[in-house]
Amino acid sequence: MRALVKTTPGYGCELVDFPVPSPGPGEALVRVAVAGICGTDLHIYKWDPWAQSRIRPPRVIGHEFCGTVVATGEGVDTVKAGDRVAGECHVACGRCVPCLGGQPHICQRLEIIGIDCDGAFAEYVVLPAGNAWQLDQGIPFDVAAIMDPLGNAVHTAMATELPGRSVLITGCGPIGLMAIPVCKMAGAGSVIASDVTESRLTLARRMGADLVLDARDGAVAERVRERTGGSGADAVLEMSGHPSGIRDALQAVRGGGWVGLLGLPGAPVELDLVNLVIFKEVRLQGIFGRLMWQTWEQMSAMLRQGLDIRPIITHRLPLERFKEAFERLESGGAGKVILTIES
Amino acid sequence: MRALVKTTPGYGCELVDFPVPSPGPGEALVRVAVAGICGTDLHIYKWDPWAQSRIRPPRVIGHEFCGTVVATGEGVDTVKAGDRVAGECHVACGRCVPCLGGQPHICQRLEIIGIDCDGAFAEYVVLPAGNAWQLDQGIPFDVAAIMDPLGNAVHTAMATELPGRSVLITGCGPIGLMAIPVCKMAGAGSVIASDVTESRLTLARRMGADLVLDARDGAVAERVRERTGGSGADAVLEMSGHPSGIRDALQAVRGGGWVGLLGLPGAPVELDLVNLVIFKEVRLQGIFGRLMWQTWEQMSAMLRQGLDIRPIITHRLPLERFKEAFERLESGGAGKVILTIES
Amino acid sequence: MRALVKTTPGYGCELVDFPVPSPGPGEALVRVAVAGICGTDLHIYKWDPWAQSRIRPPRVIGHEFCGTVVATGEGVDTVKAGDRVAGECHVACGRCVPCLGGQPHICQRLEIIGIDCDGAFAEYVVLPAGNAWQLDQGIPFDVAAIMDPLGNAVHTAMATELPGRSVLITGCGPIGLMAIPVCKMAGAGSVIASDVTESRLTLARRMGADLVLDARDGAVAERVRERTGGSGADAVLEMSGHPSGIRDALQAVRGGGWVGLLGLPGAPVELDLVNLVIFKEVRLQGIFGRLMWQTWEQMSAMLRQGLDIRPIITHRLPLERFKEAFERLESGGAGKVILTIES
Amino acid sequence: MRALVKTTPGYGCELVDFPVPSPGPGEALVRVAVAGICGTDLHIYKWDPWAQSRIRPPRVIGHEFCGTVVATGEGVDTVKAGDRVAGECHVACGRCVPCLGGQPHICQRLEIIGIDCDGAFAEYVVLPAGNAWQLDQGIPFDVAAIMDPLGNAVHTAMATELPGRSVLITGCGPIGLMAIPVCKMAGAGSVIASDVTESRLTLARRMGADLVLDARDGAVAERVRERTGGSGADAVLEMSGHPSGIRDALQAVRGGGWVGLLGLPGAPVELDLVNLVIFKEVRLQGIFGRLMWQTWEQMSAMLRQGLDIRPIITHRLPLERFKEAFERLESGGAGKVILTIES
Repeated sequence: MRALVKTTPGYGCELVDFPVPSPGPGEALVRVAVAGICGTDLHIYKWDPWAQSRIRPPRVIGHEFCGTVVATGEGVDTVKAGDRVAGECHVACGRCVPCLGGQPHICQRLEIIGIDCDGAFAEYVVLPAGNAWQLDQGIPFDVAAIMDPLGNAVHTAMATELPGRSVLITGCGPIGLMAIPVCKMAGAGSVIASDVTESRLTLARRMGADLVLDARDGAVAERVRERTGGSGADAVLEMSGHPSGIRDALQAVRGGGWVGLLGLPGAPVELDLVNLVIFKEVRLQGIFGRLMWQTWEQMSAMLRQGLDIRPIITHRLPLERFKEAFERLESGGAGKVILTIES
Repeated sequence: MRALVKTTPGYGCELVDFPVPSPGPGEALVRVAVAGICGTDLHIYKWDPWAQSRIRPPRVIGHEFCGTVVATGEGVDTVKAGDRVAGECHVACGRCVPCLGGQPHICQRLEIIGIDCDGAFAEYVVLPAGNAWQLDQGIPFDVAAIMDPLGNAVHTAMATELPGRSVLITGCGPIGLMAIPVCKMAGAGSVIASDVTESRLTLARRMGADLVLDARDGAVAERVRERTGGSGADAVLEMSGHPSGIRDALQAVRGGGWVGLLGLPGAPVELDLVNLVIFKEVRLQGIFGRLMWQTWEQMSAMLRQGLDIRPIITHRLPLERFKEAFERLESGGAGKVILTIES
Repeated sequence: MRALVKTTPGYGCELVDFPVPSPGPGEALVRVAVAGICGTDLHIYKWDPWAQSRIRPPRVIGHEFCGTVVATGEGVDTVKAGDRVAGECHVACGRCVPCLGGQPHICQRLEIIGIDCDGAFAEYVVLPAGNAWQLDQGIPFDVAAIMDPLGNAVHTAMATELPGRSVLITGCGPIGLMAIPVCKMAGAGSVIASDVTESRLTLARRMGADLVLDARDGAVAERVRERTGGSGADAVLEMSGHPSGIRDALQAVRGGGWVGLLGLPGAPVELDLVNLVIFKEVRLQGIFGRLMWQTWEQMSAMLRQGLDIRPIITHRLPLERFKEAFERLESGGAGKVILTIES
Repeated sequence: MRALVKTTPGYGCELVDFPVPSPGPGEALVRVAVAGICGTDLHIYKWDPWAQSRIRPPRVIGHEFCGTVVATGEGVDTVKAGDRVAGECHVACGRCVPCLGGQPHICQRLEIIGIDCDGAFAEYVVLPAGNAWQLDQGIPFDVAAIMDPLGNAVHTAMATELPGRSVLITGCGPIGLMAIPVCKMAGAGSVIASDVTESRLTLARRMGADLVLDARDGAVAERVRERTGGSGADAVLEMSGHPSGIRDALQAVRGGGWVGLLGLPGAPVELDLVNLVIFKEVRLQGIFGRLMWQTWEQMSAMLRQGLDIRPIITHRLPLERFKEAFERLESGGAGKVILTIES
């Protein structure tokens, strides 16, 4: 089969001929229809220090995907050939303390498809049958391919109470952009979005933000307070991963408010805990992955309710044009870039 | 001043000339603009056993109201003459265990305006200044007059998680009807409403219910399950107070689901706790009044977001036509009936 | 092997020779050491209407048990021969909405060991490997055998906030009795226990109840209010299943308080919802089974902390003396009755 | 009256003759019995930059206190002359968004007794009657004087679930020390305490810590993981305010765990959010003051249950020996230092 593989340590990937994997006990073989490129894929592609420490070539990359089950291994009864599925890329052990406590998404022995085992930028991928989510009938593959990052947005948004609340989203990458209609649909009273690039602010407006702030002004918190009668935002979804975005988040949140931290800063961040967290009794919560399977249920419900995330898909390219896809992503001007695989 | 007074024990009320009350320390005198008639007012009007046990004539009745502050007593600095306000009719003592624990709405020595002291079906009413809610500028008096029952709807809805959830509302009186757009605005995935009268089902449709069920069919739970993929409703707002509505609620709620009980049944109700509550791990919650002042904050936020409750107001009558107003209410065909007082 | 079997529809069970079961894929074969007799077993033994509707003879009964794994079927890697385990008797499907939502204990297709498949009053029992809980080293089999009902007590107690709170436990059967030290250990400020039999009230005192009330006086709620400064209990654990116990629970709970319903009444119960639930904003919660696996983690932590439940075990009998065991249980004077099986 | 006053900008305070204050409307005059010295008082005493920015001399300092009401202003009906009371030093406005939302302890216009108005290191102090907490009969003034910092400990501990959980307390100053028995009484499975001074570690052992760690080893997180089966602490109460204590807290907490931040670092702190917060889905919560009045209710319940905090009081000195008291505090070797005032 054709597969995009990190063949050797170093920059880039190669589109090579690779053996079709075979499903073991409890596993499913999926013919991949569409896959999304994640920022993590770009880190691997560029072979940054994190990638060097984690990836063992040769490795088929790609972990946001959907497709059709074509075969199942022994003991699988949750999916069958012909089922349309999306993949949950986090594979939990099922036996550690978080797994036993109902939090497999923070499993202590978590493995990630496309990182710790072969992934989905290929014609076929194998995954544990329990990681294949049955798609509702009406959901197109374009959407299903990015349910993984949509799940990040939904998991973050659902971690706090939204009805009637004022919400700030710092960072309008694909997840931040998807969080805008998610919060609106979940009843947020107003959604303010901030970013530092014009094209993303335009997309934020298109996704339904009530107010869009250019964070380069350095006045995000001030303008959020103006908009919220002086109090600040009830909830902030930090999706930039930039120290300044994180500080905007903490400055803009009201006393007693909540900040979900999803964006990943590249280095430790200096925070004024006394004034921004302790005196204000702010609650911060790290957010990782998606709840299995509450988040998937919630996503499906929202898609049935009419949630439309397709405007964030700015580029659709066939697998063969992967170089162009990665370039688009790297340029910063893109929304979501997806690869179509099944011909 | 003109005031509608239960002058003596017995049926009905009289429109009489009554002394304008005078605000004591900590109190405000409000010129009443509009007032809503509540089911409780009808109980008092008809002088039912509950009313006989609670009301001490002569008593000016009426507890859903709004108007303009005209004078304040000593030590009042939260409102001033000229302020447009709505009244919270529950007067809490501030010192009992619930009050000290942040739950003044279930104060052990709760007094109710229009029941335990003179009320608002009059040109003027006195209330503790702390019970006067400052109105946002754009809110018309028609709406402000029924923020008290709207608060019941909002308090019930906000007591559970709604985003993406399926909600059943049993009982489409004014509070049930207002709960429909409240739940939709709070992100509910679908709102099903049931009642036994045609006119109310029609209003429920107008208020935005996704599915309207005639409970006389005896198949509410079955149809809710059909609509929810076999599971049942995630949350039920019981607003009928009828034993059959309560049973519909418990039968229709899914395992692990939530039922808010707001409607007041006239007698003890027989419940199959084993199958409808225990085996399903259902959570039931009694709901009373409105949270002070979270619910008022939430209501105000929702009204700013565009919540429109005016379609439930089916009758607007001047105070003088109170008999007609009570007749309309008693007939069962009405939505909300309001009395305009300030000329 | 020796096994206690409901061989035919009708009263009683027989100790017969029965084939040793063989573990299929994903299953474990356990040599049973000790098993507890549950009220449910008595219902089956006496062949009451519920048993007639649910049990299909021949059926080995018994679902509270512990022992040692002797063999495992294909694909099992969570337990191995030699492991000491206790059994979770609820077998969840893993695929229904509650299962996917993290609530397998209220699985829509729940099967129960000893009811829907062969159970543990036998030398050997087969169970899904995922239902075998690895015992901490120091836990004796006597205790491990009743972790299933202990789990009911812990699941109920942990469903509300206990530190510093006043707790009433209505009903001092084995689960109610175990709930006493569980609540104390979880920080309850005071634990009041009520029952209608002298021997159980004596056991309740021995288990550490701060106050023990004879419910035959009809004054449980009154005495609870006296003890709690007039307010009522913060939390009630209803473990009697009797209508009068349930009414005591609702009358004794304070406004805004919580009632966990675990005891199973034999028929629908008439409740004064208005005064006991709605006006008081009481929260009721049905409780079933044990959370998988948070409750098991919590139990294990408490046993490590020194929780001692052995005083409730009033009778230890070999499997052969099952008739005497069931008689003891039926008489009402017993605490927990356990059967020792492994010789 | 005698009063300890910051008479002029600069180091130290003076014991001077000062006019007895007079209670205005809604206020109470209290004859002070005992007062505790807080770290904040030391900051004022030493006239550090924070004190210079906030304190306007002349100012009677001191905000942890108890005593007897001797007079009340107009409109006070919650306390009367002769009542024994402790003071809540945070005076909330009652009208801002947090106040209206049930969170007066993070009032946007919060004033603090002894900082923004005259305090309690004096024979008499005036406070809003609503800030006087009625003492249970058996509570000695020594204990009542430090209910304010005890309330910090209880508010922190009660902000998370403790029954059966492993808890780490970083920092064994008076509040950290009091948190040890508070957590034990609230059902914590084990309490580990860390500090960098020998005398405090000794006190921590005396207060009941199950394990005491000398943080100078740099191995707090490692030893916590060893003690908790490799997972880390379920909850951490950060009460040191030191960057290294905060980092220990984040490193030692398990995935999905909770960290309460009460200690006040003197400068911004650099945190590895990715590995210590986001990937682990840690929840952080700033903690400030005490909930009004849930925390006071909880404290009172715990004191009735037998909570004994007196071992942390290492020095009792008359007001006249204030210099010695401040020296003891500054030396770092002391636990709690209290001033006895009423002769």
